[in-house]
Amino acid sequence: EILSAAEAMLGAGTGPLAGLKALVTSGPTHEPIDPVRYIANRSSGKQGHAIAAALARLGAETLLISGPVNLPDPLGVSTKHVETAREMLAACEAALPADIAVCAAAVADWRVDNEAGQKIKKEKGGLPQLSFTENPDILATLSKLNHSRPRLVIGFAAETENVIEHASAKRERKGCDWIVANDVSVDETGGGVMGGEENTIHLIRAEGREDWPRMAKSAAAEKLARAIAQHFSLSDEGPRS
Amino acid sequence: EILSAAEAMLGAGTGPLAGLKALVTSGPTHEPIDPVRYIANRSSGKQGHAIAAALARLGAETLLISGPVNLPDPLGVSTKHVETAREMLAACEAALPADIAVCAAAVADWRVDNEAGQKIKKEKGGLPQLSFTENPDILATLSKLNHSRPRLVIGFAAETENVIEHASAKRERKGCDWIVANDVSVDETGGGVMGGEENTIHLIRAEGREDWPRMAKSAAAEKLARAIAQHFSLSDEGPRS
Repeated sequence: EILSAAEAMLGAGTGPLAGLKALVTSGPTHEPIDPVRYIANRSSGKQGHAIAAALARLGAETLLISGPVNLPDPLGVSTKHVETAREMLAACEAALPADIAVCAAAVADWRVDNEAGQKIKKEKGGLPQLSFTENPDILATLSKLNHSRPRLVIGFAAETENVIEHASAKRERKGCDWIVANDVSVDETGGGVMGGEENTIHLIRAEGREDWPRMAKSAAAEKLARAIAQHFSLSDEGPRS
Repeated sequence: EILSAAEAMLGAGTGPLAGLKALVTSGPTHEPIDPVRYIANRSSGKQGHAIAAALARLGAETLLISGPVNLPDPLGVSTKHVETAREMLAACEAALPADIAVCAAAVADWRVDNEAGQKIKKEKGGLPQLSFTENPDILATLSKLNHSRPRLVIGFAAETENVIEHASAKRERKGCDWIVANDVSVDETGGGVMGGEENTIHLIRAEGREDWPRMAKSAAAEKLARAIAQHFSLSDEGPRS
């Protein structure tokens, strides 16, 4: 840990991503129902935090925008803490311009639009009536910006079925450049990707798909950061396709 | 911490609660919506965990049944981890008979009764339609047992308004012996009880109310454990009222 902090600090300003600014979202969002209840997504933030750290190690000036997680702020990275999807989008917009945006957070698709100011009492009126409204779509919003669109926008797809098909459709629909897809269904061993230390990733780009072997989330982060660095080294040699 | 572990171990079998079995619930419950989403309560588990540790220090054989929290298992206590209200109730029932039950967990009043086996897709059919059903009421269930009712059942009331009135009504309604009431509305400083290190408690019993000053959750736990020990020392001297 001390070594990687030292690497991160030494990396700032040097390395293949030196001079580039990266924005990474990580963790879940919490959407309030009332002062004591909320809707959450299962996301430990481990993959997103590891990606932020890996980008910083390769020299990128990195801002991590994190929902509520139980992880230390990565060393060598600026971290901003948010709770809801709306707060996360506002923090992303405030961080622009950026060269790279990695949207690894598990953002709630919906929030309760009749949030109660007082605790909903069980004895009053039986079951709660929650009505929902769509949250802002952070990945699509960043992908569809005109002037301040990051040069490389990467989204995540956590799927429980038809992983590749759903993830490829998501890439088209959101307008992002790459999708990092993974299967979050519970595996045969009864364990799962969420909260775990390992991940099996399919990297989906316009030019095709890479299936990565199962590996530690830190190794997957490193591999993604290297792919990003390679992208920028290639795109510097010619016009961006 | 090492000292309190040593105290807890030395305490087992000695101390004013020696020979008594205590059951403590703590933390929130998580109620699944689909494989990646859930409804949660804001509860750090700090107060419940501290009470379990305090009861063990006074000599009680203590089982802690904890929802998802980010706290270490207290030393000197047996800890069982659960996620949902139904799992928590089942664990409580499996732990009977017990002399003391302290229901400090923030159990979800409701769960989604149309839990989806696959992730609910945003693109399919717009906003989610969640329908709710009532969760089992662990405090009322334990309080209303016939043969295996714990001799002292203590509930918690987290209120945002009319704290004393709501908590006193809760004591009657649930059939428990004592209610530990606290105000979880955000205080003037912008901080709050939930997740914080301090608590302001009103102890509500049939014989009246005690207003405790604001104090550390560990100190409140100690004070509650001492009140429990006093109750049993008095009730040993005569018939239980």
